[in-house]
Amino acid sequence: MTQTPSARSAPAATTGPVLVVGAGLLGASIGLGLRHLGVDVWLQDASPTAEAVAQDIGAGRSCRAAGPAPEPALVVVATPPDVTARTVAEALERHPGAVVLDIASVKEAALEGVRELGGDLARYVGTHPMAGRERSGPVAARGELFTSMPWVVCDSGFSSPAALAAAKNLAVDLGATVTFMDAREHDATVALISHLPQVMSSLLASRLQDTPLHHLSLAGQGLRDTTRIAASDPHLWVQILSANAEPVVASLHGVRQDLDRLIATLEGPEAPGARLDIAQLIAEGNAGQARIPGKHGGAPRAFASLTVLVGDVPGQLARLLTEIGEIGVNLEDLRLEHSPGQPVGLAEVSVLPNRRKELVEALQERGWKVVQ
Amino acid sequence: MTQTPSARSAPAATTGPVLVVGAGLLGASIGLGLRHLGVDVWLQDASPTAEAVAQDIGAGRSCRAAGPAPEPALVVVATPPDVTARTVAEALERHPGAVVLDIASVKEAALEGVRELGGDLARYVGTHPMAGRERSGPVAARGELFTSMPWVVCDSGFSSPAALAAAKNLAVDLGATVTFMDAREHDATVALISHLPQVMSSLLASRLQDTPLHHLSLAGQGLRDTTRIAASDPHLWVQILSANAEPVVASLHGVRQDLDRLIATLEGPEAPGARLDIAQLIAEGNAGQARIPGKHGGAPRAFASLTVLVGDVPGQLARLLTEIGEIGVNLEDLRLEHSPGQPVGLAEVSVLPNRRKELVEALQERGWKVVQ
Repeated sequence: MTQTPSARSAPAATTGPVLVVGAGLLGASIGLGLRHLGVDVWLQDASPTAEAVAQDIGAGRSCRAAGPAPEPALVVVATPPDVTARTVAEALERHPGAVVLDIASVKEAALEGVRELGGDLARYVGTHPMAGRERSGPVAARGELFTSMPWVVCDSGFSSPAALAAAKNLAVDLGATVTFMDAREHDATVALISHLPQVMSSLLASRLQDTPLHHLSLAGQGLRDTTRIAASDPHLWVQILSANAEPVVASLHGVRQDLDRLIATLEGPEAPGARLDIAQLIAEGNAGQARIPGKHGGAPRAFASLTVLVGDVPGQLARLLTEIGEIGVNLEDLRLEHSPGQPVGLAEVSVLPNRRKELVEALQERGWKVVQ
Repeated sequence: MTQTPSARSAPAATTGPVLVVGAGLLGASIGLGLRHLGVDVWLQDASPTAEAVAQDIGAGRSCRAAGPAPEPALVVVATPPDVTARTVAEALERHPGAVVLDIASVKEAALEGVRELGGDLARYVGTHPMAGRERSGPVAARGELFTSMPWVVCDSGFSSPAALAAAKNLAVDLGATVTFMDAREHDATVALISHLPQVMSSLLASRLQDTPLHHLSLAGQGLRDTTRIAASDPHLWVQILSANAEPVVASLHGVRQDLDRLIATLEGPEAPGARLDIAQLIAEGNAGQARIPGKHGGAPRAFASLTVLVGDVPGQLARLLTEIGEIGVNLEDLRLEHSPGQPVGLAEVSVLPNRRKELVEALQERGWKVVQ
């Protein structure tokens, strides 16, 4: 085991050997994280290349290259969602002493699939680590992918206490925060907080396909933020959206109703009540946005922000943060505002509200231009 | 004139006295910026309070409190969009020697309004500084609001060279980057890059109104980014969307077509071609997103990124940026990834691609955990 600065000092609660089936971004990241904890990990992937690459980066031993693997105590199925249920059912049958987990991002379809295939539900637990990246494949893997991220564990009602404990142990070993939910509640939740934002971002970004580049050069941070996740992998999202179609469609019907109302209103913007309709849509957006919790899961918008002018030269931003540290105020969030083609930027710094005034004064004393 | 670290050393090209009509966020910010350059600025607002506050923060002299004001060489109309045209026409009539600019975010409606009211179009130029904040009112004003931001100047075809020069001088004096476009092109552009993102973000966020908070606590950066601008002011957006209804509706019809197609597909996700349809939508989003230029207006995605593990304690991020400065690599962008309730975060650092390898190695040598 390589000792790294981020390696945990507590021994792993996960009992090996662990067989990871599917050595993509998530599977290889799980392997890497467990290897850092000294757990015996074996890797299996339909693609010999992915399996070899995952072994090369230290995510475990390739079953093809280093097998035969010992009988696993835990199987983690990290295949693409469309083959998850079948792979889980096969693993349950092939390894009758093992707990089998999957990590697909839609949980009801997986559970139904395993049930239909006659899998032993007592030894199966569906889970969902809410971590990912715009990149995919084992090369993008990192053992810290799950650090501090939520990991949902879905008790089907049939899972044995030992199987649930194994699921929880894996998440905790990898540094994640465990949340329990049943599969239906999980799927409704991710439809709203993950799948709907993806669809809206893609719908928006797809309008930019024919926009002249010199128009796009006027784009501000708003467009950048709203379209960032539109860069996600189509192949993966086809599977996620098809598997969770029902709750996603329910939300999309709500969006379409609001959209139809807005289109009708904007087609007659001088009609009585038109302005009220538009204001209501924006106000409803205000209300929804204000419900999203802040960084620490606490009350939304619990932080106060200030904006500081920084030059776009090496060291300026570092100097600002160093001085904030010297002043003794903890930085809760930091956002940079950019503008195309220009060398000056604004840093928006979030701190606890009761520290804002003190920080503004101390920064101004040190010669910083606090612009808000 | 107060000498501040950010005050420009070049003398202002703008000739005073300048009368700013409308002392909200933008009007007061223009006043502040011009005062920093030593220009004589007078303020007028329908609200005596706003006018007084703007004077108090140093944005110029209140016409009510310090008048009578001298005859202006330049009038900047910074009222809410729904009274812009009338205010411009009145200013053109009242000050026959002055150039009159407006800064409303929709330009064709303003031009048509001024024309219908019989205003002298030779002395009028519509402009749009593409800067703003989630906050409003003179208290939120800052002289640097326009620094490095685009400022669109719309030649109506009737504007005199002197009037166009005055518009350009104002933008340049305030540190903005000038872009010339006609009103129709401007409105079509902002419909797509600013008004459509606002609508999509509001439509998305409004779906969250009834979501239980413990579900929202699983939200990741994707939801936060896509809904940030949903916090914007309904009163302002009613005016913007009504004034630019036509091109916004045109884009919304495109969105509705895509949305209808997606809903139909997801209602029969097992139908032949369904998966292809979904993949196409996501791929179209990829294509649109990839067209948005990077920070410096250059080619999209011109930077390489690396992700570093940082603890959530004062000084950690500062130390990282200091060391990046010491290594001598310029930071092009910085994004923090948060997770609710947990003390560890990831900093995604963007640099020029040819400096990435060197930076990763140097950071690792210094003991940083570079996780991707």
